Amino acid sequence: MLNPWFWLAPAGSVLALVVAWIFYRNMMAQDEGTPRMAAIALAVRKGAMAYLRQQYRVVTVIFICLTVLFAFMAYVLKVQNGWVPFAFITGGFFSGLAGFFGMKTATYASARTANAARQSLDRGLKLAFRSGAVMGLVVVGLALLDISGWFLILNRFYPPSDHPNSLVIITTTMLTFGMGASTQALFARVGGGIFTKAADVGADLVGKVEAGIPEDDPRNPATIADNVGDNVGDVAGMGADLYESYCGAILATAALGATAFQAAGGAAQMNSVLAPMIIAGMGTILSVIGMLLVSTKEGATQKQLLGSLARGVNFSSALITVVSAVVLNLLGLPNAWGIWGALVTGLAVGIVIGKSTEYYTSHGYRPTVSIAEQAKTGPAPVIISGLGTGLISTAIPVVMVSIGTILSFLFASGFSFGNLPMGLYGIGIAAVGMLSTLGITLATDAYGPIADNAGGNAQMAGLEKEVRERTDTLDALGNTTAATGKGFAIGSAALTALALLASYLEEVRIGMERAGITIVEIGGRSVATASATLQELMTHFDVHLMNPLVLVGAFIGSMMAFLFCGLTMQAVGRAAGRMVEEVRRQFSEKPGIIEGRDEPDYARCVAISTRGAQREMILPAALAILVPVVTGIVLGVGGVMGLLLGGVASGFVLAIFLANSGGAWDNAKKYVEEGNLGGKGSEAHKATVIGDTVGDPFKDTSGPSLNILIKLMSMVSIVMAGLTVTFHLL
Amino acid sequence: MLNPWFWLAPAGSVLALVVAWIFYRNMMAQDEGTPRMAAIALAVRKGAMAYLRQQYRVVTVIFICLTVLFAFMAYVLKVQNGWVPFAFITGGFFSGLAGFFGMKTATYASARTANAARQSLDRGLKLAFRSGAVMGLVVVGLALLDISGWFLILNRFYPPSDHPNSLVIITTTMLTFGMGASTQALFARVGGGIFTKAADVGADLVGKVEAGIPEDDPRNPATIADNVGDNVGDVAGMGADLYESYCGAILATAALGATAFQAAGGAAQMNSVLAPMIIAGMGTILSVIGMLLVSTKEGATQKQLLGSLARGVNFSSALITVVSAVVLNLLGLPNAWGIWGALVTGLAVGIVIGKSTEYYTSHGYRPTVSIAEQAKTGPAPVIISGLGTGLISTAIPVVMVSIGTILSFLFASGFSFGNLPMGLYGIGIAAVGMLSTLGITLATDAYGPIADNAGGNAQMAGLEKEVRERTDTLDALGNTTAATGKGFAIGSAALTALALLASYLEEVRIGMERAGITIVEIGGRSVATASATLQELMTHFDVHLMNPLVLVGAFIGSMMAFLFCGLTMQAVGRAAGRMVEEVRRQFSEKPGIIEGRDEPDYARCVAISTRGAQREMILPAALAILVPVVTGIVLGVGGVMGLLLGGVASGFVLAIFLANSGGAWDNAKKYVEEGNLGGKGSEAHKATVIGDTVGDPFKDTSGPSLNILIKLMSMVSIVMAGLTVTFHLL
Repeated sequence: MLNPWFWLAPAGSVLALVVAWIFYRNMMAQDEGTPRMAAIALAVRKGAMAYLRQQYRVVTVIFICLTVLFAFMAYVLKVQNGWVPFAFITGGFFSGLAGFFGMKTATYASARTANAARQSLDRGLKLAFRSGAVMGLVVVGLALLDISGWFLILNRFYPPSDHPNSLVIITTTMLTFGMGASTQALFARVGGGIFTKAADVGADLVGKVEAGIPEDDPRNPATIADNVGDNVGDVAGMGADLYESYCGAILATAALGATAFQAAGGAAQMNSVLAPMIIAGMGTILSVIGMLLVSTKEGATQKQLLGSLARGVNFSSALITVVSAVVLNLLGLPNAWGIWGALVTGLAVGIVIGKSTEYYTSHGYRPTVSIAEQAKTGPAPVIISGLGTGLISTAIPVVMVSIGTILSFLFASGFSFGNLPMGLYGIGIAAVGMLSTLGITLATDAYGPIADNAGGNAQMAGLEKEVRERTDTLDALGNTTAATGKGFAIGSAALTALALLASYLEEVRIGMERAGITIVEIGGRSVATASATLQELMTHFDVHLMNPLVLVGAFIGSMMAFLFCGLTMQAVGRAAGRMVEEVRRQFSEKPGIIEGRDEPDYARCVAISTRGAQREMILPAALAILVPVVTGIVLGVGGVMGLLLGGVASGFVLAIFLANSGGAWDNAKKYVEEGNLGGKGSEAHKATVIGDTVGDPFKDTSGPSLNILIKLMSMVSIVMAGLTVTFHLL
Repeated sequence: MLNPWFWLAPAGSVLALVVAWIFYRNMMAQDEGTPRMAAIALAVRKGAMAYLRQQYRVVTVIFICLTVLFAFMAYVLKVQNGWVPFAFITGGFFSGLAGFFGMKTATYASARTANAARQSLDRGLKLAFRSGAVMGLVVVGLALLDISGWFLILNRFYPPSDHPNSLVIITTTMLTFGMGASTQALFARVGGGIFTKAADVGADLVGKVEAGIPEDDPRNPATIADNVGDNVGDVAGMGADLYESYCGAILATAALGATAFQAAGGAAQMNSVLAPMIIAGMGTILSVIGMLLVSTKEGATQKQLLGSLARGVNFSSALITVVSAVVLNLLGLPNAWGIWGALVTGLAVGIVIGKSTEYYTSHGYRPTVSIAEQAKTGPAPVIISGLGTGLISTAIPVVMVSIGTILSFLFASGFSFGNLPMGLYGIGIAAVGMLSTLGITLATDAYGPIADNAGGNAQMAGLEKEVRERTDTLDALGNTTAATGKGFAIGSAALTALALLASYLEEVRIGMERAGITIVEIGGRSVATASATLQELMTHFDVHLMNPLVLVGAFIGSMMAFLFCGLTMQAVGRAAGRMVEEVRRQFSEKPGIIEGRDEPDYARCVAISTRGAQREMILPAALAILVPVVTGIVLGVGGVMGLLLGGVASGFVLAIFLANSGGAWDNAKKYVEEGNLGGKGSEAHKATVIGDTVGDPFKDTSGPSLNILIKLMSMVSIVMAGLTVTFHLL
């Protein structure tokens, strides 16, 4: 029996989608400004849409191949159930849709934001924020729609409700649409990340460094591509990324709930499965209310602007802790307060990680200023100290996630390390808590690239200095809010990956049952596969730290994170190189461009970035999918679990390092540009520009892709668990 | 009863020390060249010795503190045995001694090598190589002396030979002198690494980049400090590092042998403990023979030079495989051929990793050339592509170590994953195999900085162009051999760390027995602690991948590698900054320096690097020692094992990345300096110099320190195991 509270999830979904639609309509009703402004926005929009079409074309082919493979596994090999191929596709489809809507909105909003900024700062902020909110709302709305829709369908039609494991099977089946979302997100992040940084790095290298023209100068042929990149990478890529995180956290937690409360059964089990969906639904409703609180007044300082954004986020976060306490208790979950403790732990950890990210990457604090100061001795010290800062900045988030893991485990398990299923459920709930207000945190995130593009539009359209200053203020704000958003994304990825580790083991159990292995030998005793505890399964598969297969798996998992980073970084380098050549060619063939007489060929630069991104994303993406499969087939269950642990332990830390180094370099440059250490054009400025260029692929390509890598590897392993159980070499 | 083959170990030790003495005497009998050459060499030598004295002073204080702590643990808390404090001290003392002798020889050899190169290339090569050989031989000689000496003492006096676990207790006690060696090595590597790179980076930043004077120009005040740095970092630091690796591998394997053959007992157990020492002894004897084969003829190409070094190494490696097959069979070990298979696997893995390092870092191959080519677009692409190359270069070593781990495990265990003790012993033997010919591989390593210093001496003394070209040839060769050496060091570190993981668990068992816990509950059954299998102990302590304490431990271990790198990198940055200020001050206060009229104040630069290194090494070193202790006390056995796994999985990969990126940047710069892409002084050259400067702390400070970090964390955990068993929070 569905608890009526369940309907909070679809209700949140519908509310989010409706409000998104209203925000979108209101934004579209605004004026785009001068014809020049509209023309620039159109060029960016066309480029971005052309990219997205191309990207989706490639991804469609890959989805078709994988769907055929899953259908083969389900209907011929019988190592998976028949819903998997369909669930996989919807996950990918909705994720793509969220990215599409978010990006469409963002590309329509840039000129309108610039135009609104001509009137007042407050109007600019509101328009940019509400356009960003469309993305946030579409992501959570579609995710909740997909999740609650599938839950209703599976709960109604599959499997027969008298099956003892009904909810366990439903929830693990739903995990496979998480794999669809992860696959889509990987391509969106890697492809979009390569596009945006190839364009950005290429534009900077020739424009700022060689030709000495400012950022977003219309004479730079790569400048439209650069603005397109903000949309395909920072908007569409990020949307798909967080769609994946959100679904992953909710689905993994639901699956853990089904297992944890399997013995209790009945309402307790059902409600524990529903709890993450209900929390997400409530969080979405509170996010919408929070959004309406965001506004500012003319002449507001950056601090006041930040305060107004923070007001919305804080409101939603504070209220979710109160409301969830009530709802979890009304749901009648056993140990409701413990589960609530786990949720609050997750939220708190997310906030502290966000603060730590801000500390290490904002030029309001010592670390970034000290990177900028190194610029006096040249670019090499800037690089070394940026790397050093990023490496050191991993400590606080890791310690926080560690504390969060243990606390949420203990709260939910009633302070017993032996109660694994409940404790792991608590870890999942912590991740859901961290992401519960994603609607509004993502809005503040997506706001950034819109403000950035508005600035680009204002610059290219030659608007007044005052307007440009306003868009700069809006843009600077975006960097800080993005830092907080990244903190949540990285933190929740780590917790979700831990939860998925448990889901993997459950999927192995189901795979064994499907393969007819109903009895397992554990330390000489025979135990029914269905009722073996997680500890017993670990013993059965020898998943301990002396098993060489586990150790080797961990090595390979750790290496995968590094290799994947290296491949994406090289990809940016190569694609940027092609961009540099193209810009140089245009400058030398048409000297009129640099003198401002001739129009550069913007479209060619967009096409080069598009081609580069599409070509370069294949290898890293293929590795992310194939390595877990091969590891499973060669090393078996222990090897896969080692792989996943090594991947998350290494990938999580590497992701923080890359994101923070990149962010710190970016802001060190901004610090100099604000007039410190000689200001724009000084040697110190040049040194920090080099730092920022190195940081570009760090923070916008390799770093964010890692979040997805670690979860995609888990998702692939989960879907392939049946195969691994049936066939493996060692 | 000791098997007479045991005496191969002390025999190898004595032979190594005697030959080292002969090489040293022969080197000292050579002429130092012109008075200017002797004066420069004297300045470097004085600086290096002053540094080492200061370093040993700090380390002595730390050793006294730790010894008091261990004595307290042994005699008051009774959680360790009474030999531990003494064993700890000798490990540190001999390691320091090896560094001291090696460096003393190197500083005497530089001017003599330059002088020999005035006569012929062959004489230069031989002198430099044989001086490097002193270091190689002293390291293996003192290590074997320490090991075989302690083994004889403990076997004679402790514990009573009728104790059932006599060899187990002897070998685990001996591991604690490995901790002495690791502690010494950490300070030597971190302190030396900071010194050398602060001086190098500082000298380059002001000298090459700002003042436009070449490397090793006597007008640069930091140039003597730079040459001192080569000695304290690359010679003394590397000596202590490999002393630690060598001891660690032999001691861990002996300890695993004692456990693996505990049931068999008698000669089988004794011989399995002796096997790693005997293999090391034989390897040392073969290394000495190999060394005598190294020579070349005048006008030899770099390829021929490399061939002549390779001849010696290949001879020793080939022969050790043959001789060990015979000896292992004569020792009468059960499954002697399997153990031999593990040994050969280790050697083969080391060779492949070395080749892969060469491929990724030598400018004879594509990756490094392509980094150099990026210099056409500026420094940022050089940095991005160097990072990318380094990240990608982790794949082959990790895959090779993974294959090596599984193969050596399977060979030694008779192809049974269930036979953990034998399999783990095989992994240890693979590490010993990899390091068996350390005498000669370390000689080719230590040769590098000697040739480098000879070049510096020739340059500063204003010798003829022809001589300078010869020393350049010798120096270039050193870069390639160093790559191979690093491959062995990194590969063996990973395997040894895995072996130490097993030793930790054995130490936990001993700690339990000491604490009176003679029965453990495993899955409801009671098992005697002494006879519980490793699998059962893992189950008892819940050391599986679903235990949140293990997962959190792995996160923290992974983070430690990154944090440690960040701290050492920042330390180099800060110390280099102080050096830059000093050099600038000297240039501006005494304009005569740059015109060549005034003598710069070299000693002040040396003093600045010394102070910087001593101050900056404390925090990272303290963390490396404290974090495992705190983890043990808070998270218990599972947390510590997670920490060690996370640390090795992440640290190993990070170390390869840093070493290879750094090496590739160095050689990309050399490629340009050889006249490619515009040659010296071009924009491309400047870009690669920036890359090289960034790479300096990568390859010579943070990267190599990681090898020690991962083993020191294991050693600390092993020594503290008794404490963890008795007191832990969670």
